[in-house]
Amino acid sequence: MDKRPIGIFDSGLGGLTVLKAIKKIMPNEDIIYFGDSKRTPYGSKSKETIINYSIQDVKFLLSKNVKAIIIACNTVSSNAIKQLKEKTDIPIIEVIKPGAYISTTITKKKKIGVIATKATINSKAYEYAINKIDKDITVYSKSCPLLVPLVEEGKSWWNNTITKEIIKYYLESLVNEEIDTLVLGCTHYPLLQDAINEVVENKITLINSAGEVAKEALTVLKNLKLLNTSGKGSLKLYTSDRISKFYPLAKDILEDNTIKVDKINIEEY
Amino acid sequence: MDKRPIGIFDSGLGGLTVLKAIKKIMPNEDIIYFGDSKRTPYGSKSKETIINYSIQDVKFLLSKNVKAIIIACNTVSSNAIKQLKEKTDIPIIEVIKPGAYISTTITKKKKIGVIATKATINSKAYEYAINKIDKDITVYSKSCPLLVPLVEEGKSWWNNTITKEIIKYYLESLVNEEIDTLVLGCTHYPLLQDAINEVVENKITLINSAGEVAKEALTVLKNLKLLNTSGKGSLKLYTSDRISKFYPLAKDILEDNTIKVDKINIEEY
Repeated sequence: MDKRPIGIFDSGLGGLTVLKAIKKIMPNEDIIYFGDSKRTPYGSKSKETIINYSIQDVKFLLSKNVKAIIIACNTVSSNAIKQLKEKTDIPIIEVIKPGAYISTTITKKKKIGVIATKATINSKAYEYAINKIDKDITVYSKSCPLLVPLVEEGKSWWNNTITKEIIKYYLESLVNEEIDTLVLGCTHYPLLQDAINEVVENKITLINSAGEVAKEALTVLKNLKLLNTSGKGSLKLYTSDRISKFYPLAKDILEDNTIKVDKINIEEY
Repeated sequence: MDKRPIGIFDSGLGGLTVLKAIKKIMPNEDIIYFGDSKRTPYGSKSKETIINYSIQDVKFLLSKNVKAIIIACNTVSSNAIKQLKEKTDIPIIEVIKPGAYISTTITKKKKIGVIATKATINSKAYEYAINKIDKDITVYSKSCPLLVPLVEEGKSWWNNTITKEIIKYYLESLVNEEIDTLVLGCTHYPLLQDAINEVVENKITLINSAGEVAKEALTVLKNLKLLNTSGKGSLKLYTSDRISKFYPLAKDILEDNTIKVDKINIEEY
């Protein structure tokens, strides 16, 4: 057993969907979450910038003496995992492989759609991960750069008419290809799950990898004997920009009014 | 006469609408433009972050030996002008006052709407500037955080159905207040001018401050005997992120295929 906290980070709020899943299956773990709201979105930035930013994010979490790090961001997972693993010996868990794996077990038509940020789509990380498991599956990808800003706008936007029209626009080509499975390849997108389900009339299975990532993290911690089974399960949130911007949305996503948020200067790390 | 270049900067591409107006009325000036695409959008960030970022932007332009700086960004103009003027003795021209002034000459009902980023609206810069000229004018403000990401998506988004629906949503309260004049309080918004005009059925006068800012800059340069009347009018563009992201949109906005763009590391300044 290891009582040190788990570190989780994302470019902003999306990673809270992963945090929520983690807390559910590992209620005794202390968790440190960092959301880089100051520099969000990562998904439209260059690979080099994504690497530099996420190295700082990892250094911040390491300064908090974490025992493992979960990259709760597809853009970072698909663009910087190698560079981050070089920075530390503690386990680093990423979000691409768990989602890719579960999608291959669900598709019947062997046609999987992936929606994600530009940087994730450009990396082809999902295509590689899916075709490594089953080379007969065709992956149809679509970058949806407006969806992260939409989610960051707040709850009233997560399922309104405009959002559904934007989703319809983005999904049109994938629906025409008759995919039966759609990977939500960005941790912000599960917050749009109801809107997406309405648009595809529940005819396509959505893969929200948050639950899969949590299971993967549990397995890793168990195997390395790092699991904390007797802690109180504390949570500490950090953001790089205004607390007044981060807090209301974090509260809505976590459905918890008691959360505590602090601000840090990420560029110091 | 001073043959040094003019420096212009913005959080991204929006400032190119100002650059275009400047080139039109000062065709002999050499111009250095910096768009901070790596850290865009500024408008949803904290005042402190906006100040820090824009000081770096100004330092970069000063390293290029510019004779004057135009802040082609409402968010920076409304949040950091004081701090920027402390950094240099060369003239710094901002975008709020010229737009505010022209709007007061146009409104008949004394009801002016202002749309801008969150940071600009929170600063109340337009309200102060307009009411300083005429305290009987009522200013109705609305922050529109999705419009900058929409513009940055590319030309196909500047006047499509979804964009018009989003604009309609944002403008509803202002239209209900029966404004007759609408200040486009963000240099990205002139690119949505056709869409906005359609939504308000040409019943409201839109104030695109780019032309006013250019006139203001011309006056300042003339008064200080800094105007270049015999140069070739060269243009050099710099971005802090991928050239492949900046170039296609810059080309569309400037309607010029011959532009040259270089990438810089803004965090070094």
